[in-house]
Amino acid sequence: MSESEAVVLIGKKPVMNYVVACMTLFNAGAKQVIVKARGRAISRAVDTVELIRRAFIKDLVIKNISIGTQELTGQNGQKTNVSTMEIVLTRPK
Amino acid sequence: MSESEAVVLIGKKPVMNYVVACMTLFNAGAKQVIVKARGRAISRAVDTVELIRRAFIKDLVIKNISIGTQELTGQNGQKTNVSTMEIVLTRPK
Repeated sequence: MSESEAVVLIGKKPVMNYVVACMTLFNAGAKQVIVKARGRAISRAVDTVELIRRAFIKDLVIKNISIGTQELTGQNGQKTNVSTMEIVLTRPK
Repeated sequence: MSESEAVVLIGKKPVMNYVVACMTLFNAGAKQVIVKARGRAISRAVDTVELIRRAFIKDLVIKNISIGTQELTGQNGQKTNVSTMEIVLTRPK
């Protein structure tokens, strides 16, 4: 698996599901895992990262956190803006 | 007002309330405004910053974003962990 594919998209499942997804990627050799979320899932993304750091990888490095806006077009053609967040995680050797 | 006091704590009110709070601080001369949130309010903090950037201060600089965990003790003495986030905003001259 290439590093660039190590992305975990946070949705509405329990936090632990995403923690396991990240841990699986790291254990498969990923040097970098990117956690992505938008809208209400953003707080769950932070929960995921914090849980990994507290419980699994104490020396986890949060390399970068960025936020942005994505424009979505609804079924009725109406445009809405949704906030996005990306957290780049690396694990020291 | 000293710069260090320019903190907006995000709660459960509508996003626009916090946007106005940040804009008021900037307009009062604050060079830096820190947006803080915890738990579910984290996504609202991101919404606040993105709305300021899109609608009010196009050249807003997101100087830093940090996340963490805070330990809370409930009424029954039980400890729970809650995720926290801080976004440091500056406005270029």
